[in-house]
Amino acid sequence: MTNETMFVDLGLRNWKAGTDRVDKFFAAQSEGELQRELAPGKNRLIYVWGHLTAVNDALFPLLGFGPRLHPEMDAMFITNPDRSVETILSGAEVKRCWTEINESLWERFQALTPAQWLERHMSVSEADFAREPHRNRFNVLLNRMGHTAEHLGQAVLVEARK
Amino acid sequence: MTNETMFVDLGLRNWKAGTDRVDKFFAAQSEGELQRELAPGKNRLIYVWGHLTAVNDALFPLLGFGPRLHPEMDAMFITNPDRSVETILSGAEVKRCWTEINESLWERFQALTPAQWLERHMSVSEADFAREPHRNRFNVLLNRMGHTAEHLGQAVLVEARK
Repeated sequence: MTNETMFVDLGLRNWKAGTDRVDKFFAAQSEGELQRELAPGKNRLIYVWGHLTAVNDALFPLLGFGPRLHPEMDAMFITNPDRSVETILSGAEVKRCWTEINESLWERFQALTPAQWLERHMSVSEADFAREPHRNRFNVLLNRMGHTAEHLGQAVLVEARK
Repeated sequence: MTNETMFVDLGLRNWKAGTDRVDKFFAAQSEGELQRELAPGKNRLIYVWGHLTAVNDALFPLLGFGPRLHPEMDAMFITNPDRSVETILSGAEVKRCWTEINESLWERFQALTPAQWLERHMSVSEADFAREPHRNRFNVLLNRMGHTAEHLGQAVLVEARK
């Protein structure tokens, strides 16, 4: 394994570990438990799980993998706050999307070479990327790992209040 | 910049961004606000900040940088739960340690070559490392970024309850 391959491997290991922790936590919640709030009046667990799912789904276009698998999740879990959309997915439905999206992302991730990980993401222009070469796929991966970890930390806290 | 240098740079950028967010959040809290709990009966913000500081301090020996700067923080913020130690550091004291530790870590981080980032950390034996080469410094960096993000997510939630 070359050094650059090892760096990619480490990123993917940590991505996978974070995703697995989210999976383990949320999949163990009943539909009723998923209605619990992070704090009084704040987002419910179902919203957090849907949010993490929708954010991962948005990686398809952002990383140049093609169209999103579940663009309908945006209105429910990203662009609108919790409880403002009449009907959102159930826990079982979010779980199905979560698994589908992450399995597909994982395949895409594993197919990228180190050099491809360092190519620009799709929200930065070629001109800007020439000046700021850190705005690449691997940077997005690391950034999203942090985003997922922040929300998982909040969700775990709800469980600790039981 | 070579590919392997870029991977290190991305790790460091994300480490720095996470550390800066912690800094910004906690430094803005008064001593009184740092007494707020993550949830009723749970850890106080001051404990979380001290915990993140002590965990970063533990990186010195773990990454082979030498002895810890503040080993006395362990008993206050890692090995014992919140409120079980009679006297802990004030917010001002934690802030001083946090800044000192992170500035020193940052210098060490920037001095490492990509190959050095892929060397074993000090909690794994040479024999185990030969079989599991991912147990290296960079893996520790990514892992701790997730740990910090989880706790920051929890802390931010306290602020949202104000």
